[in-house]
Amino acid sequence: MLGEGDSKTEPKAPGGRRAGGRGPERPGRGRGRAGEASTTRLPAPTSGAAASRARARRGGAWAERALLRAMAADRRGKAATLALRRRLLSSSCRLFFPEDPIKIVRGQGQYMYDEQGAEYIDCINNVAHVGHCHPLVVQAAHEQNQVLNTNSRYLHDNIVDYAQRLSETLPEKLCVFYFLNSGSEANDLALRLARQYTGHWDVVVLDHAYHGHLSSLIDISPYKFRGLDGQKEWVHVAPLPDTYRGPYREDHPNPAVAYASEVKRVVSSVQEKGRKFGGSPVSCAVGLAVLDVLEKEQLQAHAACVGSFLMELLGQQKAKHPIIGDIRGVGLFVGVDLIKDKATRTPATEEADYLVSRLKENYILLSTDGPGRNVLKFKPPMCFSLDNAQHVVAKLDAILTDMEEKMRSCETLRLQPEAALLSPPLEKMKHPTQIHY
Amino acid sequence: MLGEGDSKTEPKAPGGRRAGGRGPERPGRGRGRAGEASTTRLPAPTSGAAASRARARRGGAWAERALLRAMAADRRGKAATLALRRRLLSSSCRLFFPEDPIKIVRGQGQYMYDEQGAEYIDCINNVAHVGHCHPLVVQAAHEQNQVLNTNSRYLHDNIVDYAQRLSETLPEKLCVFYFLNSGSEANDLALRLARQYTGHWDVVVLDHAYHGHLSSLIDISPYKFRGLDGQKEWVHVAPLPDTYRGPYREDHPNPAVAYASEVKRVVSSVQEKGRKFGGSPVSCAVGLAVLDVLEKEQLQAHAACVGSFLMELLGQQKAKHPIIGDIRGVGLFVGVDLIKDKATRTPATEEADYLVSRLKENYILLSTDGPGRNVLKFKPPMCFSLDNAQHVVAKLDAILTDMEEKMRSCETLRLQPEAALLSPPLEKMKHPTQIHY
Repeated sequence: MLGEGDSKTEPKAPGGRRAGGRGPERPGRGRGRAGEASTTRLPAPTSGAAASRARARRGGAWAERALLRAMAADRRGKAATLALRRRLLSSSCRLFFPEDPIKIVRGQGQYMYDEQGAEYIDCINNVAHVGHCHPLVVQAAHEQNQVLNTNSRYLHDNIVDYAQRLSETLPEKLCVFYFLNSGSEANDLALRLARQYTGHWDVVVLDHAYHGHLSSLIDISPYKFRGLDGQKEWVHVAPLPDTYRGPYREDHPNPAVAYASEVKRVVSSVQEKGRKFGGSPVSCAVGLAVLDVLEKEQLQAHAACVGSFLMELLGQQKAKHPIIGDIRGVGLFVGVDLIKDKATRTPATEEADYLVSRLKENYILLSTDGPGRNVLKFKPPMCFSLDNAQHVVAKLDAILTDMEEKMRSCETLRLQPEAALLSPPLEKMKHPTQIHY
Repeated sequence: MLGEGDSKTEPKAPGGRRAGGRGPERPGRGRGRAGEASTTRLPAPTSGAAASRARARRGGAWAERALLRAMAADRRGKAATLALRRRLLSSSCRLFFPEDPIKIVRGQGQYMYDEQGAEYIDCINNVAHVGHCHPLVVQAAHEQNQVLNTNSRYLHDNIVDYAQRLSETLPEKLCVFYFLNSGSEANDLALRLARQYTGHWDVVVLDHAYHGHLSSLIDISPYKFRGLDGQKEWVHVAPLPDTYRGPYREDHPNPAVAYASEVKRVVSSVQEKGRKFGGSPVSCAVGLAVLDVLEKEQLQAHAACVGSFLMELLGQQKAKHPIIGDIRGVGLFVGVDLIKDKATRTPATEEADYLVSRLKENYILLSTDGPGRNVLKFKPPMCFSLDNAQHVVAKLDAILTDMEEKMRSCETLRLQPEAALLSPPLEKMKHPTQIHY
């Protein structure tokens, strides 16, 4: 159930706090309308007063000061940071937008801010489930950090409280908990538990799956091992359950049964052969705070609502732009499958890449996924709002419209400043990347 | 170089802050003398005034309030926490002192406090390198948590600053950094890098080694795989370089060359066959703060000084107690090898276990290690003081003396309250564990 809203379409968190600290916002207000030459880039800190006023209209004074402090603390330019990073970190530690990476100094709710104060909508995210730097989560970490942070070999209430709260969100059978340091460590342990229990070594995995960055998980991740050591003889790859591009599509009389029997063949072909953990008081305090925020701000209901709205808006775009082949997802985890043409459903990989770069120029962070890297993947923090959805889809619409115009005039798609969206001055190219449509 | 001390034996951190927040303390003052029936257990919170005064003499008022807050926040008794833990966590997530685990609610410097306010000296530690809850480290985490915590795919100064600071502490050749979520993840990556570089799969490991809790590392950890799947054919175990109990002892004409040629044989026998990472802004801010504290408080020099003092005191105990066979270590990482007799050097496993339990009754946390689990392992936070060393060794002396008396009178070693150390009332046994000497 959503709290009382101040509008029919915009759910409001209980207590009046709107995720991201923004006041009510309507699409097209306070931002450039889609397709226009305006930009959301805020004035640099030198013209602080105007920037302050602009942001103060939308957020709190505290948030404004936090951003200004973060910008002031930025000691070196982006180029210097990049040069140091190239020297000190391995190139396998990848950057988003490697050709023109972003320097982020501040995160709040569903927004990230670069060193010049420009505001990006974060549809990539990864970890900040309930929004970047949620004050309740930050406070929980700080309170516990001041008192005790140690391993789980002493008794402590946080670890049992967290396990109990988690168990309440899970089926009754899932009632024993292991706390580890990462998803990869968790998957590695799951694999060992399964092998111990079954007494078998072989593993059946879905094609294109990614299970983590550890040796044991690269072995069972087709997404990873195809580029490295190849497939081990004890790994058995089942096809993706893909009713859009797989062999059993939506026009198949019974795609579920057909797919299931194919997986059964893979499983039957498998030969039968015979911790110190995480869970520190601080990580458990943080986990408990995240559960609190999820409940207090009713973020699951919020995400379901905003997600279905986003799917609806994207559906309208699908009717308008033939490049959109399919839209699928659950809640705020949504994929937009881009295709070369409806008949072959060939992945529009370069177009997806170009679109993501253009969205970034428009201060929207989004990434691609899927075997063909042609699926736009929406995975924003759960406080992502109806206004955010409307704004992002409007930008997507404008860029797709522009792309179609270029296609019609047989122009080469090149990245350029968004200001030039309607009258592209090709000589002002910002990036050397050339993508042929 | 150490800062100006207020005593000839006690190094003091610059700025007058003594790790752990204690004022100058002499062995035997403010604590029961070794061997006496007194205890360091502080009054329960109900008799708060006396406890407050006692602690205020030794620490700051802030530290006192922090402990009282932590005790007040303790919502359930130790038994209830233990029962919940047994129900919700896997039994493979082990506890220290499993027969009578400790509930720890507060850590500060080299001390940990249970839910009743009893103060333990932490010689086990693990992670709190510069002392539990160091205020500068806690503050660094909080400042960064409020502003931004995200993955390392955006540019950020903390990750390059931390890499640069680390590179200054390492040989010039070690100049490319990967940040991961745990030591296990780091070792897994190191293994992959080595295999990629050499093109070989086989691994030579030291006997009894432990490299981490992941599948790939259990495979190369004799300490682990002996109890599980056994040794893989591509794992080659070299003996420990042990001049105390190994085949080439201190009386060997050239133990180093003899050992090296044995390892060479193992290496020659090896057949020749053909990430998203950690490094978040917060973890790097914490890492930078730890480096700051290490430097500002001159903790390396401090640990070298206290460590050599500890080794000297332990050496005196070795002359006194025949159970101590060997003392070895570097800095504050010190091992005391306990033996059944000088001739055979048979590991005194049960005695070590008993001693650790008795030390715990005396509010000293210590663990054992080594293939025979007979080596007392000192691994305290680096702020461990000369007074702590003196106090711990005095307690060790008293317990060993008592053990020897029992041996002489052919008594069974049983765990009992420390108050009864000099006149053991066997009927008042606290623990059912019986250890036969």
